[in-house]
Amino acid sequence: MLLDEAPAVATVGLDLFAEALREQAVAVTPVLWRPPLAGTEDALAAIAADPQVADANAEASRRLTMSRPKLVGIATAADALGLGRGEFLHAGPPISWADASGPVRGALIGALIYEGLAATFEEAERLAPSVSLAPCHGRGAVGPMAGVVSASMPVFVVHDDVFGTTAYSTLNEGLGKVLRFGAYGPEVIERLRWLQAVLAPRLADTLQRHGPVDLTSILAQSLQMGDEGHNRNRAGTSLFIREIVADLVEIDAPSAEIAASLRFINGNDHFLLNLVMAAGKAAADAARDIAGSTMVVAMARNGTDFGIQTSGTGDDWFTGPCGVPEGLYLSGFGPEDANPDLGDSTITETVGLGGFAMAAAPAIVRFIGGTVADALETTQRMYEITLAEHPLYQVPALSFRGTPAGIDVTLVVRTAVLPVVNTGIAGREPGIGQVGAGIVSPPASVFVDAVNALAARAGALASR
Amino acid sequence: MLLDEAPAVATVGLDLFAEALREQAVAVTPVLWRPPLAGTEDALAAIAADPQVADANAEASRRLTMSRPKLVGIATAADALGLGRGEFLHAGPPISWADASGPVRGALIGALIYEGLAATFEEAERLAPSVSLAPCHGRGAVGPMAGVVSASMPVFVVHDDVFGTTAYSTLNEGLGKVLRFGAYGPEVIERLRWLQAVLAPRLADTLQRHGPVDLTSILAQSLQMGDEGHNRNRAGTSLFIREIVADLVEIDAPSAEIAASLRFINGNDHFLLNLVMAAGKAAADAARDIAGSTMVVAMARNGTDFGIQTSGTGDDWFTGPCGVPEGLYLSGFGPEDANPDLGDSTITETVGLGGFAMAAAPAIVRFIGGTVADALETTQRMYEITLAEHPLYQVPALSFRGTPAGIDVTLVVRTAVLPVVNTGIAGREPGIGQVGAGIVSPPASVFVDAVNALAARAGALASR
Repeated sequence: MLLDEAPAVATVGLDLFAEALREQAVAVTPVLWRPPLAGTEDALAAIAADPQVADANAEASRRLTMSRPKLVGIATAADALGLGRGEFLHAGPPISWADASGPVRGALIGALIYEGLAATFEEAERLAPSVSLAPCHGRGAVGPMAGVVSASMPVFVVHDDVFGTTAYSTLNEGLGKVLRFGAYGPEVIERLRWLQAVLAPRLADTLQRHGPVDLTSILAQSLQMGDEGHNRNRAGTSLFIREIVADLVEIDAPSAEIAASLRFINGNDHFLLNLVMAAGKAAADAARDIAGSTMVVAMARNGTDFGIQTSGTGDDWFTGPCGVPEGLYLSGFGPEDANPDLGDSTITETVGLGGFAMAAAPAIVRFIGGTVADALETTQRMYEITLAEHPLYQVPALSFRGTPAGIDVTLVVRTAVLPVVNTGIAGREPGIGQVGAGIVSPPASVFVDAVNALAARAGALASR
Repeated sequence: MLLDEAPAVATVGLDLFAEALREQAVAVTPVLWRPPLAGTEDALAAIAADPQVADANAEASRRLTMSRPKLVGIATAADALGLGRGEFLHAGPPISWADASGPVRGALIGALIYEGLAATFEEAERLAPSVSLAPCHGRGAVGPMAGVVSASMPVFVVHDDVFGTTAYSTLNEGLGKVLRFGAYGPEVIERLRWLQAVLAPRLADTLQRHGPVDLTSILAQSLQMGDEGHNRNRAGTSLFIREIVADLVEIDAPSAEIAASLRFINGNDHFLLNLVMAAGKAAADAARDIAGSTMVVAMARNGTDFGIQTSGTGDDWFTGPCGVPEGLYLSGFGPEDANPDLGDSTITETVGLGGFAMAAAPAIVRFIGGTVADALETTQRMYEITLAEHPLYQVPALSFRGTPAGIDVTLVVRTAVLPVVNTGIAGREPGIGQVGAGIVSPPASVFVDAVNALAARAGALASR
């Protein structure tokens, strides 16, 4: 065949083709493309043929991005979640003691001691295999890392007036040796008791004076100030303090307790994280249970399995093995100390924050590794697998484009682009605490399983 | 002439040459270049021939960037600056009442009423032409906008341990109708009296409990959080509150006063500005009076004239007419309401903040206009006229490159690139207040005059 002009060649897939052409001095434009994940062609076709999907996803997107969660109060987990004294919640999809990793075991042991159900490590370890264990997500709650919640713990109450959802999270304990990273020593228990006896009631009184705290507004501002809402919450924590501090000063409490409460919050730039998570849970729950919607409404890890839930598949979990984050380690630790990925904090990525908003937080690369260009590129890549752009969570460096929000499992399966999660790394042994921070993705199989389940539901509907 | 290869053509200056070549299908690389400002060739040659300049500028750069100013206390202007009851300071280079613009006149009238020297506007206006007027800079102080300081006003005391400089600034009054923008109504005077009676003594007690506040550290962090230190100080103000709040709670004062103080600071994202300015003044003063140095150590505007001082020319001011900033106006105002450029806040640009750090603050474009790309480009252009990169003031979006710091008047004259100032806009009539915010540059002539004065000193030295 003879051509009138020089050919324009675009290559897809293997580099081999592009290289062979380049060696023959042909200009080549390589295009990034991968085939859909294996074994999903029929399922994708079934979903594509389902007429309700487009409207379902539009509604799920509207709900996810129009939710306006507010912190309205503080309650005990017993009252708010109906947790009995021997019942415990954990992060991620369901897991038994037998399958639980070190930090989850450590946190459960700590919680048993905190609840007064065991006096020693040994006693708690004997008791632990028989306690009632369930995922936070099933009770409207979210917990960072191990995510262990027990009856006496105070929880934030976050409510969304727009869609009527309510979500809960524990108070962030700070850094270092803390329960959520699997530490259970006396200083951990003492801190939990102080949260319960001092900080929680003082904050509850403050909220009563102040009224609801608009978390969407704080988050929208914090993204203009270098936060991404998961691994960097320095600006958001600062804005939260500014929002409540004058009312905190005016509650009826000794000034030493008020000062101690402020020093505690001030000492922890992640204090806002648990509130971001509860706000994310309230928004994601608003988008649940829309028949046909292929949107992810929960991503969560229990340190053994990574699980996702979609709007169109109810409370079913699609799970696969957790990866180990790649990132930077605290002094004295390395990859051999790392537990597999852990925590409900991936609710932030579920709603367009965290890894999805990294372009707003270039300074995060000092904490998790990589370059500023990587941070920008990560956010841009996430637009390929999301249904919406968040109208209020905007990225200055992308000329105020809204963050990519609402992961579509069919887009993940079609593009083989996996969600990027920006997370802390727990030590694998119980009692160690945090060892680093980095980047991780869910296993691809969970999206394949979700797509197949959605296709089965679409098929069931079609054949009715 | 015959060439073996296709010519590589770079064009400089007029587009005409590039266009003519392009029409002949010649590949052209246009290079941005302008001739030095007119009438400076001899002076630039004289300075280039002066062997002390390089070392002098290295020392000035070291001092400017290694200064570590801390807020150490609060005093009255009478005590700290030796101001008598009938003496008043103002922003910018020297000016008389006769030449003063509306906002400076308005602020002076307000200060006369505040000091009890006049009871009414009319009385103050009669008295004003005869009062003693001098620039803040001459007393180690800096004032935003009109910059009027009178004896009873409280001032921040900022000290640099490294080089021993001390600088002063008034407390920021907030936004809207405030003295620094030329407003003088009863609410302005009442607020100034509250600052004197309540906020200043409470902050003074707080600082005594807390110890010095490291302003360099707050600024370094705030640049990772979307501030540029001049027109955007939201993060820095937040970090300042976090730094002092626990000690503020523990001073011996009624909780209503503590809460009112917090509400006042909280209500004003520019609260930190005056501290940034005093920190800038302390750093710039550390770089003063180094024989041969061509570095700018002060840029300041009095609403009529823009003045600069260089390290090598002592207390001489080089002045020219102020421009009017281009930017965005508050609702109800437009360019016809704008006063020419005003205030000592250009000390921020002098030390590598403000317009020079705009790339750190993409969200600023929502306040002053332009695009995020403009903000990045502005900082990058400023490297052409500066001697150093600030080791602690880093820009995440430029992969943590230090901000351009230490303007060299010879580089300004050689490149014709003018410093970019990021500033508020005052109403031109006394009593109006702020009308907008935008971008402005000094008149080119002040750099020409400074270069000629430096050349004369270099010549005098050479001929000795």
